[in-house]
Amino acid sequence: MNSIMRPHVFINVAASADGRISDESRRQIRISCEEDMQRVDRLRAESDAIVVGIGTVLSDDPRLTVKSQALREERVKNGRTPNPLRVVVDSRARTPLNARVLDGEAETLVAVSDLADEERVAALREKASVFVAGQEKVDLRALMEYLYSIGVRRVMVEGGARLNHSLIAEGLVDEIMVYYGGMIIGNGPCIADGPSFKPPVPLELVRVSRLGSGVLAVWKVLADKS
Amino acid sequence: MNSIMRPHVFINVAASADGRISDESRRQIRISCEEDMQRVDRLRAESDAIVVGIGTVLSDDPRLTVKSQALREERVKNGRTPNPLRVVVDSRARTPLNARVLDGEAETLVAVSDLADEERVAALREKASVFVAGQEKVDLRALMEYLYSIGVRRVMVEGGARLNHSLIAEGLVDEIMVYYGGMIIGNGPCIADGPSFKPPVPLELVRVSRLGSGVLAVWKVLADKS
Repeated sequence: MNSIMRPHVFINVAASADGRISDESRRQIRISCEEDMQRVDRLRAESDAIVVGIGTVLSDDPRLTVKSQALREERVKNGRTPNPLRVVVDSRARTPLNARVLDGEAETLVAVSDLADEERVAALREKASVFVAGQEKVDLRALMEYLYSIGVRRVMVEGGARLNHSLIAEGLVDEIMVYYGGMIIGNGPCIADGPSFKPPVPLELVRVSRLGSGVLAVWKVLADKS
Repeated sequence: MNSIMRPHVFINVAASADGRISDESRRQIRISCEEDMQRVDRLRAESDAIVVGIGTVLSDDPRLTVKSQALREERVKNGRTPNPLRVVVDSRARTPLNARVLDGEAETLVAVSDLADEERVAALREKASVFVAGQEKVDLRALMEYLYSIGVRRVMVEGGARLNHSLIAEGLVDEIMVYYGGMIIGNGPCIADGPSFKPPVPLELVRVSRLGSGVLAVWKVLADKS
């Protein structure tokens, strides 16, 4: 792959001990413990952009803002916006106009493909910036290059399973942080869902520890990266 | 559930960081590192029986014996057989007669249901003991009671995903040991596959540590158990 200028990209995900991020009905399940929620909030505060897929917006309707006022104030003291940029990867512009991610609490960028309906895109432009790249699916490499061009240096990806898989497949992920929570879900989307990688994508274990009632593992992606 | 006399049952499984035990073609993938292979061999040597599902026999054709001669000799010194009893959960008696698990290197029990073809069962009886319980699927509780009745006190379950799920669903698992290996597979069977548990089955983290190039987590099952 050609080398591109792009931010440092890490996936953060909470999964059950059997690797599920929700159950088969995609119902949101609280997997993280309190300690992990605080860690995730710090990670957000340290990032320049938070990226999610449209599936996550449709099923969880996340706000993607920094919860801690102290952390937001710290960002402002450092000359940053209170919250990182929120980015939705949304090839067909399906983000509902009343989604929390469009609530105006922070800046939002919706990345769509050429396939996205023009009227929907126009409506989204009222509430967010829109980035268009890719014929049928968002061109993720172009998106990362664009984010870099507007000053984003550290990207936190918060799922879901298909976006995680696509980013890994494109060689666009540097690190994967997994919180394995104390439960077996038994079915449902996993940390990364798509075709099997053949061979599997190799990871190096950076560190592992108990965190609250679960396990926090930080993996470095060793595959060819752009 | 009624209480039964049954052995201590633990699942041991090696999975990728995303919770897969093989890829979508069910091709066997080496996930364990050398340190984990040795740990698994010790676990086998400490067990009275090793249980697997028919899917695992058909896809991996495992031998399920203790690899280390020293560990086998230690068992013999303690008045035990060199290898634990091998148990195949095989509702329809599909175990191939040339499967390694029927190689005569250790005793083998094939657990079948009433649905199993009589001729196949008769052929299996030439090479193994056969236990019949359950109408269409093996009655796992009856199997565990039977194992207890013949002196089995410690059972190691080595998969696959569906047997793991069924045993957890039946409340027959005390502990789950997961080795998370340094790779993303992206699709394929997971640590436990079946319907989602609603609510998820709660686990308590007993211990976690780095092991070789991966993570070893030991989880205690907290659900109602028989």
